[in-house]
Amino acid sequence: MSKENVVETTLRVRYAETDAMGIVYHTNYIVWFEVGRGEYMRQQGSDYAHLESQGYYLPVVELQVRYLAPAHYGDLVGVRTWIKEIRSRQVTFAYEIVMAETGQLLATGWTKHVCVDKEGTIRMIPQEVKEMPWRS
Amino acid sequence: MSKENVVETTLRVRYAETDAMGIVYHTNYIVWFEVGRGEYMRQQGSDYAHLESQGYYLPVVELQVRYLAPAHYGDLVGVRTWIKEIRSRQVTFAYEIVMAETGQLLATGWTKHVCVDKEGTIRMIPQEVKEMPWRS
Amino acid sequence: MSKENVVETTLRVRYAETDAMGIVYHTNYIVWFEVGRGEYMRQQGSDYAHLESQGYYLPVVELQVRYLAPAHYGDLVGVRTWIKEIRSRQVTFAYEIVMAETGQLLATGWTKHVCVDKEGTIRMIPQEVKEMPWRS
Amino acid sequence: MSKENVVETTLRVRYAETDAMGIVYHTNYIVWFEVGRGEYMRQQGSDYAHLESQGYYLPVVELQVRYLAPAHYGDLVGVRTWIKEIRSRQVTFAYEIVMAETGQLLATGWTKHVCVDKEGTIRMIPQEVKEMPWRS
Repeated sequence: MSKENVVETTLRVRYAETDAMGIVYHTNYIVWFEVGRGEYMRQQGSDYAHLESQGYYLPVVELQVRYLAPAHYGDLVGVRTWIKEIRSRQVTFAYEIVMAETGQLLATGWTKHVCVDKEGTIRMIPQEVKEMPWRS
Repeated sequence: MSKENVVETTLRVRYAETDAMGIVYHTNYIVWFEVGRGEYMRQQGSDYAHLESQGYYLPVVELQVRYLAPAHYGDLVGVRTWIKEIRSRQVTFAYEIVMAETGQLLATGWTKHVCVDKEGTIRMIPQEVKEMPWRS
Repeated sequence: MSKENVVETTLRVRYAETDAMGIVYHTNYIVWFEVGRGEYMRQQGSDYAHLESQGYYLPVVELQVRYLAPAHYGDLVGVRTWIKEIRSRQVTFAYEIVMAETGQLLATGWTKHVCVDKEGTIRMIPQEVKEMPWRS
Repeated sequence: MSKENVVETTLRVRYAETDAMGIVYHTNYIVWFEVGRGEYMRQQGSDYAHLESQGYYLPVVELQVRYLAPAHYGDLVGVRTWIKEIRSRQVTFAYEIVMAETGQLLATGWTKHVCVDKEGTIRMIPQEVKEMPWRS
């Protein structure tokens, strides 16, 4: 794949994201996926808020995560996002969560989305998403 | 005040609600206030979801919390909710968070809400809220 | 499978769990998995808080979710939890999220956990978990 | 006050932080306070993670928030943080949440913290916090 098809976003772990094990609670990695996905779309010239204002929504219909190593409060983590597959009515994003400084891999995962309108009816993926680059 | 004007809801602390100090993260008590407020309205014969379906919203405009003792994963906590004041366009709820079994007080607080419509314009509190009992 | 090996917990959707689409944000279903898992262990005579007090932790190492229909504020949802597999050092829980009143299926998923001690070293699953019933 | 005693951190609103009203759920502003507080300490040459590694904790004992205008998904918001008061065993941080581009004020608030050790015993504020600048 070409490097420019992967967008890396950096964020700092919040205390609110930790749990009593002293590490980041597992669902927060999936919130970081959402942060990475939003940034990916912005960097490709689109914007999820703009899509919604046009009546398109991309709810998650399936997701998978593998956790390899924990993150802690104050860590700088990188979220690498790319598109794994675009079909006429759905799009799948893939992610890697890494320690920003060392590149150590903390988690990997993907989220599959269908395109729906405000009534929940399945729609064709809008053109500005359809044209985004992807690698399988 | 008469006892029936205070509604107590019980909930069990989730792991997701803890933080790296091993205790409940402080904003989650305020989420519990919301749980208590919703249950209060249901027990008074109203329902916040129903209010919204009629075009009324009660966003929080001010809140205060005092934290006295921590809660931990698995604890059963009680949320005691009552109405402290109703004015023509605003309502203030008050809360106590207690250990359900011992009654030990963990936190106290209040949230003030204005009534707005879908456009954000301030409205009169709807009648079904206006009629709820309160104590100052 | 025998019915008693599935534990159903009921919870009411919090406003905090919704998002701007007007439905429950997708990671909150996974928090509900955690609620179901905790209740499962309690009903089997164990308790995750007790495990931790003995130095055992069960962090999530992998998870998958399929979303079938949305939940909304105030909905009563049921979380059905069972053990899908126990191996010497890991345990996999499976879940169904349903509308409590109608039984409509909203989401399905599973979480795989390894057993570690406070230092993060992988350990044998403690006996009280090992003895829990499961179905494949 | 001198300008350098206020630290401004910028963050982008996450979809996870919104609720069914289409705006940011009210407790998330208080999570942003925590983000601002952490950044304040880092920019003053301290670090909350470092404090904890030395056995000092700063749990919140009281907080207040006023909400003036809502934030939406994708908005860039600024968190302005300063120290309002330092006493021998407690410290109070104050905050403003603003729209990063226009400076429009969205919320104001403060959080009061006591210093405790791992056993929860109240301690003197450590020197590196004691020396931070503040304005009343």
